[in-house]
Amino acid sequence: MTDRENALALAEVRLTPVLVADPPLLNTQGVHQPYTPRLIIEVVTERGVTGLGETYGDAGYLELAKPLAGSLIGRSVTDLNGLPALAAEVCGDAAAATGPDAVDVGGLRGVRTADKLRLSVLSGFEVACLDAWGKAVGLPVHALLGGKVRDTVEYSAYLFYRWAAHPDGRGERDDWGAALDPAGVVAQARRFADTYGFTSFKLKGGVFEPAQEVAAIKALAEAFPGRPLRLDPNGAWSVATALAVAEELGDVLEYLEDPVSGTARMAEVAAALGGTGPGGGPGTPPGGARLPLATNMCVTTFGEIAEAFTRDAVQIVLSDHHYWGGLRATRELAAVCAAFGVGVSMHSNTHLGISLAAMTQVAATLPGLRYACDSHYPWQTEDVLTERLAFHDGRVTVGDAPGLGVELDRDRLAVLHRRWLADDGTLRDRDDAAAMRRADPGWTAPAVPRW
Amino acid sequence: MTDRENALALAEVRLTPVLVADPPLLNTQGVHQPYTPRLIIEVVTERGVTGLGETYGDAGYLELAKPLAGSLIGRSVTDLNGLPALAAEVCGDAAAATGPDAVDVGGLRGVRTADKLRLSVLSGFEVACLDAWGKAVGLPVHALLGGKVRDTVEYSAYLFYRWAAHPDGRGERDDWGAALDPAGVVAQARRFADTYGFTSFKLKGGVFEPAQEVAAIKALAEAFPGRPLRLDPNGAWSVATALAVAEELGDVLEYLEDPVSGTARMAEVAAALGGTGPGGGPGTPPGGARLPLATNMCVTTFGEIAEAFTRDAVQIVLSDHHYWGGLRATRELAAVCAAFGVGVSMHSNTHLGISLAAMTQVAATLPGLRYACDSHYPWQTEDVLTERLAFHDGRVTVGDAPGLGVELDRDRLAVLHRRWLADDGTLRDRDDAAAMRRADPGWTAPAVPRW
Repeated sequence: MTDRENALALAEVRLTPVLVADPPLLNTQGVHQPYTPRLIIEVVTERGVTGLGETYGDAGYLELAKPLAGSLIGRSVTDLNGLPALAAEVCGDAAAATGPDAVDVGGLRGVRTADKLRLSVLSGFEVACLDAWGKAVGLPVHALLGGKVRDTVEYSAYLFYRWAAHPDGRGERDDWGAALDPAGVVAQARRFADTYGFTSFKLKGGVFEPAQEVAAIKALAEAFPGRPLRLDPNGAWSVATALAVAEELGDVLEYLEDPVSGTARMAEVAAALGGTGPGGGPGTPPGGARLPLATNMCVTTFGEIAEAFTRDAVQIVLSDHHYWGGLRATRELAAVCAAFGVGVSMHSNTHLGISLAAMTQVAATLPGLRYACDSHYPWQTEDVLTERLAFHDGRVTVGDAPGLGVELDRDRLAVLHRRWLADDGTLRDRDDAAAMRRADPGWTAPAVPRW
Repeated sequence: MTDRENALALAEVRLTPVLVADPPLLNTQGVHQPYTPRLIIEVVTERGVTGLGETYGDAGYLELAKPLAGSLIGRSVTDLNGLPALAAEVCGDAAAATGPDAVDVGGLRGVRTADKLRLSVLSGFEVACLDAWGKAVGLPVHALLGGKVRDTVEYSAYLFYRWAAHPDGRGERDDWGAALDPAGVVAQARRFADTYGFTSFKLKGGVFEPAQEVAAIKALAEAFPGRPLRLDPNGAWSVATALAVAEELGDVLEYLEDPVSGTARMAEVAAALGGTGPGGGPGTPPGGARLPLATNMCVTTFGEIAEAFTRDAVQIVLSDHHYWGGLRATRELAAVCAAFGVGVSMHSNTHLGISLAAMTQVAATLPGLRYACDSHYPWQTEDVLTERLAFHDGRVTVGDAPGLGVELDRDRLAVLHRRWLADDGTLRDRDDAAAMRRADPGWTAPAVPRW
């Protein structure tokens, strides 16, 4: 290690699990819990510079985060290429004990393997190291990633079918009210547009039978003519249903996200929609552009890319830096996508401002980003930052302050951590099906295809 | 731009074309000229930190380098993601005027397009910016790329058929003597092994009819039992010849490099050698591992990857950071290769120590690098550095000094630049066929397949 790297060596790593208020947002597996676990990571250099990271906070992730945190002491914040091997080494036993299926959020995070769990954990450390590195040398994270190519990053309004409140009066209240039909979805979209300036809209589908969701998209198209719309049933449909929906909505959708489960079925849908075959990138059938398919379910790891791209199963990959192993891995994913003519954008699960800042910093560096990114952030009324990130005209400004440009509010962190400590264990693993059973005791996460 | 980025802004860019002594090394297109053009790039920050880069020095590259150099003034050395767009903008006219075929080194650099010329030029600037950035903040280039995963990088002995001297007494003399048969090749390999400790050997083929080159590889296998051997005829063979050679040498070759020209023919050879079909990565046929194919000719740009990987045409890509657009692009290429189970290593053309340092820094950061890299450096008796890089046990140590860890010798640079100034123009574009005509006036670069 060089002198400079020694100065950037880590002296301390702090892990703080929190429970964050989450509204009763519906998806095909169930409903969001009233509180969702997240893990806040702080890395501190020898010279006292602190970097922030955030990732999933379920028990399986915490199990892996502990040994990895310990192993980082003495390493430079610049020493990132070795993190996967380090994580495999120090987390091996924990991952084996936890098992590949230990963290189950109803399949919404794609394939679950020990490798992917480790990547999800180390991504939080990678972001924290980049934040600390940037702060230590006075550069924003985007500069450490080679510099921004845009000054703002566009996000889409993430629309959900939802209840007015959680069952049994649990959780925090909000004033959004229920959205359970096309009119409710349009009203929600209108409020998002008015409040944040979003001009691109995504509806989380797979909740109601497809005709109702088709009607909701058509209502959105009428309310926001010409605006980019997306529908994401989280793989709940059959190939036939996906094609029927594509037929109905082909003219108004920007893309269709995970209409079916698995690469084979996605490839079948893509081919039927007019693909040009392997290696050709997104196909343009005679008479017009085909409706592209996006995914954050069948391509969630580098190991899943070859089959999907070779079969032309997906035309847009929605990256999630948590899954993929961090901001640098996200850039690598974008490079793979670019080489295959596949588009790239960003997926989101419930997250706080640290992750939104990280998403924004890396998104700013991707020349090939052509779609508005997803973010749950507007649904999160709580945060651990002294100042929330803001959306203007549907965009987040790419900060030029050192690191991620955000500051931890220790009081808020303590409050959310105490909530985690106080929990009896029922909320420490996100389980949308269990949350749904509060309202519907017989509920089990439906098998796919559901329709 | 942030304050820190302002401090890293460029105040000056210097371009110095040089002619570098090159031995009479033979390839299928002809012979190396007695002197080869290279371009030395210096970027200087507002605070006086100088970064070094190196790339091809042919006239077509110089034409593009001039406007790009001018456009860098005032930009931060960290602002690298925007370089391709900047180069396209400012070099557009020059590239159009130069035309895609203006720089012709006999096809040895793969497809020639304006895009690729620009990438080859900007790679030199990217390396120079990384060097300056590293020096400014006290970090080695490998740390700016996320940190090294190894402390030394292995190189192979790059064996050439060669004459004892250039025709007409031109160029610099050396004491290697001729190598024009198996015994000569083995003697050359022995000297490389004794002097530098190389334990991996690559023979540049395509010079003699295949049976003689097969004999040379067999002689090497006998002289260095169990050592990794490669043969590279630069695409000179037909599919049938390639398969016949593979049959003869399958047991002793680590890989066969560009046996045929073009992705279609490479795919045909790979399939016949036992591929498992698209998307499966390198195939392992029943009964043993197939002989992998490597390339630095049919996959030299990101645009060529999809077809080659989808068709399983190549199993190893030999990256050249000059072609691909720099060290960060090399890392992206490695990520694409990793996703498709394709191996990665490094190609080399005639280059100096700045590029060897750059190759070593980036190679150190690639977890998936499993093959010894190629380098012409041992053939270059001249350099522009105060201290030459050294091979020990066939390896170059990954420096931890700031930047690339090399220092420019301005006197040597001036000597080699004066040679370039004094040239009547005949050597300013590398032309191996023209050099061959000095010995064989009727020579034209052979059409492929030659055999």
